[in-house]
This record gives sequence, structure tokens and C-alpha cells, in this order.
Amino acid sequence: MSYKLSDNFSKMKPSATREILKVTSQPGMIAFAGGSPDTDAFPCEEVKKLSSQILSENPVSALVYGVSEGYEPLRENVKKWLIKNENISFENSDIIITSGGTQVMDLSTRVLTSPGDAIICEEPSFIGSLNCFRSHGCRLVGVEIDDDGMNIRKLEQAIKDNPDARFIYTIANFQNPGGTTLSIEKRKAMYELARENDLIILEDDPYGRLRTAGKSLPSIKSMDTDGRVIYAGSFSKILAPGIRVAYAVVPKAIVPAFTIAKQVSDVHTGVLNQMIVSRWFDEYDVDKHISEIQKIYRRKLNLMCDCLDKYCNDFISFVRPEGGLFIWAKLDEKIEMTEYVKRLLEHKVAVVPGSAFMIDDTAPCNYIRLNFSTPSDENIIKGVKLMAEAIKELRI
Amino acid sequence: MSYKLSDNFSKMKPSATREILKVTSQPGMIAFAGGSPDTDAFPCEEVKKLSSQILSENPVSALVYGVSEGYEPLRENVKKWLIKNENISFENSDIIITSGGTQVMDLSTRVLTSPGDAIICEEPSFIGSLNCFRSHGCRLVGVEIDDDGMNIRKLEQAIKDNPDARFIYTIANFQNPGGTTLSIEKRKAMYELARENDLIILEDDPYGRLRTAGKSLPSIKSMDTDGRVIYAGSFSKILAPGIRVAYAVVPKAIVPAFTIAKQVSDVHTGVLNQMIVSRWFDEYDVDKHISEIQKIYRRKLNLMCDCLDKYCNDFISFVRPEGGLFIWAKLDEKIEMTEYVKRLLEHKVAVVPGSAFMIDDTAPCNYIRLNFSTPSDENIIKGVKLMAEAIKELRI
Repeated sequence: MSYKLSDNFSKMKPSATREILKVTSQPGMIAFAGGSPDTDAFPCEEVKKLSSQILSENPVSALVYGVSEGYEPLRENVKKWLIKNENISFENSDIIITSGGTQVMDLSTRVLTSPGDAIICEEPSFIGSLNCFRSHGCRLVGVEIDDDGMNIRKLEQAIKDNPDARFIYTIANFQNPGGTTLSIEKRKAMYELARENDLIILEDDPYGRLRTAGKSLPSIKSMDTDGRVIYAGSFSKILAPGIRVAYAVVPKAIVPAFTIAKQVSDVHTGVLNQMIVSRWFDEYDVDKHISEIQKIYRRKLNLMCDCLDKYCNDFISFVRPEGGLFIWAKLDEKIEMTEYVKRLLEHKVAVVPGSAFMIDDTAPCNYIRLNFSTPSDENIIKGVKLMAEAIKELRI
Repeated sequence: MSYKLSDNFSKMKPSATREILKVTSQPGMIAFAGGSPDTDAFPCEEVKKLSSQILSENPVSALVYGVSEGYEPLRENVKKWLIKNENISFENSDIIITSGGTQVMDLSTRVLTSPGDAIICEEPSFIGSLNCFRSHGCRLVGVEIDDDGMNIRKLEQAIKDNPDARFIYTIANFQNPGGTTLSIEKRKAMYELARENDLIILEDDPYGRLRTAGKSLPSIKSMDTDGRVIYAGSFSKILAPGIRVAYAVVPKAIVPAFTIAKQVSDVHTGVLNQMIVSRWFDEYDVDKHISEIQKIYRRKLNLMCDCLDKYCNDFISFVRPEGGLFIWAKLDEKIEMTEYVKRLLEHKVAVVPGSAFMIDDTAPCNYIRLNFSTPSDENIIKGVKLMAEAIKELRI
């Protein structure tokens, strides 16, 4: 029996960092390697109440087939919310509900790219999206990030060098893993470049509402007069990830293609899941919930940053993020990153090697990604202290 | 702003039958065009109770990220159930939980085919799967069906003519739309042909448990000693479709590729959804539920077949299915199918033109697909009578 994989899948290399990631979920491990929101931030009581209401009042409505575009009341609620909070216009765009945020990247890549096409993205970037693009046979073109997001001069060069680029992928708010936020000037500049080169922008915004400092910046989608921005939003970080409800704001001209792509992917997103989120808007103050959970993230982000400043100042540098879930920590040049990550594991502290987020994950990289939302406050302190311990051993 | 679609999506033609399908959900319409299970067959009370238990006892466990392969207790429950009921062995195979049955077709096509590759399937076949295959740029090779399923001589020829075929797609039980069931001899013959030609079989079995007459036949997967069969099962028809939980039994050698495909598609299937199904196995007698709902389907299938025999005998012929949801009705040669379908719509009876299930949906076709699970008993009788009315007008 021979199994011939597709051209795209036979090119997917096993991840160089997968082996390290495997051990990060071992018991007793301090989890700085995760990417989950804080479970204390889940509105558990609300979900329980809403689910019970839905299944008591009209269970059949939650159990029948839905339409591919998504549950209409949820689409309307999200639209109203985005108009109010993000100043997004729906004149030339519409909403498609997806099964989690990753599905927006998947549908976009399916609809807009052919194998071999280039996708321009930040480097480092979210491994899940990079793997999604890779799985469609796309060529990744990385553009480095400054403290205020993607380097625009290098973006311009990348566009020039890659006329087969189909879209620019950006996580403008609290980038994963970089922690950086694209400045307003750069948002405008990126949009202008896209316009000049007739490119689409895929704006992935899972963390935008998890702002813990500074002022909210307008999304690139809010500047989109041409219909060239696809905006990906998600309830994974503000409600809960296990519910798998997210959405794409898609230019109307390509909504039919997205709808077909959604249909052939999974027909539609779970109806009960969508109804829970829709009723959450109807019966609760979602924005108030978000300000509540921002307090949790603010506390933890500051705690981890303060601890890093206190205990690891001599070998780690980072840009303090204004939100999100991650700190992108640069190690002193003299430290061999992979060696340090292994040493940390021995101390039961799990972090993600920065190379995981690179386009070529075998190239040298002296960053690690730290997550502060999964561990407890106590473990944040303990873990960072252990990070300082481990470095001493390395220097012996 | 120009929107260049992917090679695959720019080749997707708008469906010739979509316009007709659009009007089928109009109010007052007798719905013979649907494909939904009977809502009376949903275990609503059970779902409500299970969901409430899960969200009371440990809500966080239902709201956190899950693993891509699926919720472990559900995987174990499905395995045990398949070993017992379907005699499927897990020595060389494993289970991946998917977001509905269509996702199994999608993952299989992603992992195993490249654009231009051929997929051999029954013709007619399920439009959702055909569109999924098309969306990946695959070339569909149709093999006609006899009363006992795919014509094996023609399958052999199709394999010979298409050395680039990657797999055989079959709905062996109560085919959609054909209503036919692949005989045991043909199952063996198909497996042998696959073996001789080193082909994979994608066995789609959403309706297998909805048997209303005759004896269950062993699945092709149960004969699979080589690990060349991917088996797609679903809870859409035995529990409820809106919950979007299905599964693939996949040869172990390609489980890693399937897991990556699942990960980049939607990370994992909703956890609450999976927990509800898993607890359904723990706390209820799933097989007893299935025998209960089989009574509903038996009653409705026989009612529609009897009505067709009584009122439409002179212009419609069909093979009485032993289960499933559909009757594949052949119109008298003198009837122009599209004209008849339009006339039926005027009488507020919606059916699906058979051409929708053909590889070339513009070719002549004198079949219509009738669904008996969606309409009430009363509407089945009324609708079939109207079918007889409408034919009289056509003959004037």
C-alpha cells in the first residue's frame, strides 16, 4: 500500500520545533508556551445560562442545518458591534461566520491563491497561519517587524520582488509572536501600498480587544474604501476558544466564492455555538465583559514584564506589548537559544523557540515567545525566576 | 479593485440548478428538495440535559482549546461503537473527529489529491462532495449505478482510463441521490479493484444507520486489510446535523497528514459539541435511539413510495430504497424534467432536478430527487398527489 500525498502536503516538512512543543504539556510544567486565553476570563455562567435557554425554548432550531454564511442574528449582532466599535462599513463588505479564526485564513487562501503564489507576511508570524498558507502550496515572503510593526520600506521591496504575491497577511494588533502593534501611519502606508499594487490585505485581529495599555487604533479594514481588506475577528479570546466561532468581513465581490469555500469545507459552523454567541450580545454587555477581562490581562502582562525586568534584565530584552497574549523575548547574543529552551524544560518551564515562527525554522534565531495568559500569577513569578536560574547554569 | 480568484475557484461554474434550489425554501412550499433528517428524530431532551451537565460540572473543560484529532473520550466511544457495530478494526487505522461529514471529503482531497487528479465516483452523487472535489481542482470521473450500486465493469474501465485517479468515492449505503445500496459482492469487487490498482477508497456512510428494510451489509472499511479505505461517519443523521460532529477512520500512515490538514482548516471541532456526543454514548443507549428513529424513517419512506406507486405509477419509476433519506425518481421519457420541476414549483412542491447530481449538470437528465424525511406525513401525501396533478397539465 503506497500513500501518495498531494503536492502541497508532500512539501510540508515536519516542524523542527514540534519535538520541543510535545513535552510542554507535561504535568508540573510551567506553561509559558501556550496561546490560550486565561480560563478565568471565560463567561462560564453566561454560556451555561444561554445554552440552557436555547435548548429549552427551541432545541430544534439549534440542531437543524444552518446556512453557510452563518446564523443571521449573529451576523447582524457582529455587524452592529463592528460598526460601533471598529467603524467598519458594510456598504461593500459582508460577514461570514467561521469555525474559528484559522478558518478565515484557510478560506482566504483557498479562494485567492494558487500553488506557488506568494503571500507576504510579518516575520515572525503566527505558526498556525503560516502552516495554513504552506498547506496550500503558497510561498511565504517574510518582512521583518520593527517596534511599531511591519517595516514598510521592506514591505515595499517585498512587493516589488514578488509580483505574484496575492495578499499581505498582517496581525496589526499585538502581533503573535512579536507583541508589536502596527502604528496608524504604517496602517495607512500599508493600505496605500496595497492599493498601488492592487493587493489584498488579510488583517487578522484575534487579540485587538485584549488591549491593556494605550489607545485603540483604527483597523485597516476601517480605512478600506476599495474593498481590498479581509478582516478576521474571533470570539476565541473574548469569549472562549473551544466554542469555535469567529468571523470574516469580506468584500462583497468575493462573498459568493467564500460562501462556496465555506460550504465545501464544513457546510456551516455549529448552530448552537453561533446561537450562544448571538444571545450573548442580546442579553449581556459584551463591551463591559471585555473591560473586565482586560483587567486580568493587564495584571498578568505587567506582572510578567515586571518580573522579566527584575530577574532577566541582563540577558533578555523585549518591547512591552500594549495587549495580546505574548511577549517576544530577545536573548543576549551569547546565548544559544535552543540550548536555553532545553535547559528551561529541565527546570519545568516551557517556552516556544522563536524559530517556530520563522519562515525557515532551521535558521538561527535568538528569540523565545512567552505567554502570560495561561500560567497563574504565582507561576509567572516562579517561572521567570527559573528563567534567571537556568541562564546561570548555561554560563558555567 | 480586481479580484483574481485561485485557479481552482475560478473554474467553479455557477450551478445550473442553484436558481431552482433558491426558491425551494419559500413559505408554504412542500419540501421534497431537502436533505435534512426528520426533526422529530432529534434527541432534544438528551442534548439539553447533557449540555447542562457539562456546563455545570466543568464548564472550562468545554470552552478551552481542544486537540486537532478530537476529544479523546469521544474518539474512544466511537471506536468501541464501530468495533462492535461495524466490525471495523483499529489495528491499522485511527479516528479523527471532524466538523461534519463534508470535512472528511475536504481533508481527504487536500491530503491526497493535487489539481488535475481524477476522482472516480458514482454518477449521480452527492452534490456537496462533488463540489468539494471540484473546489480542489480535481477531475470527476463518473461511473453509473445499477440497482445494486456502482457498475463494477464500468468502474474497472474508469480505473483503466484514468491512471491519475487518486481514490474511488462511494456512498455504499442508500446512496445520495440514487437510493441504491452496494451489494456485498460489489463491495468485495470494488475493494479488489482498488487493491489491484493501488487505489484508496473513500467510503462515505452518513446514512448507513438509517436502514429501514433488509439486512445490514458489512462496510468496505471492515474488509480493509491493507489500510486503503477512509471511512466517513457522521452524527448528523442519527443525532442532529446542526451539532456538526462527524468522524473519519483513517489509515494510520496518513493520520499525521490528516491531523495537519485538520489543524490548518479549523484547529479542532467545537469541544462542547464533541462532549455532548461523547456523553450521549456514556449515558444513553445510542443503538436503541437508532432503532427508534428507524421507525420514523421506515414509516415515511414507505408512505412516500406507496403514494408514488399509487398516484404517479404511470410516469415515475424508482428502486425502493432500504433506508436513507432519498428516492431517485425516473420520469417517463416523454417528460421534460426541468419543465416538470418548474411546474411543480408553481404547485408549491419543491424537488431537486436530477442534473444537480451529475458531473455535467447541463447534460439531459430525466430524474428528480425526492426527500421524505423533511415533510410531514400529511405533506408527503399532498405533495405526491400534486406531482400527479402537475403531470396532467404538462400533457395538455
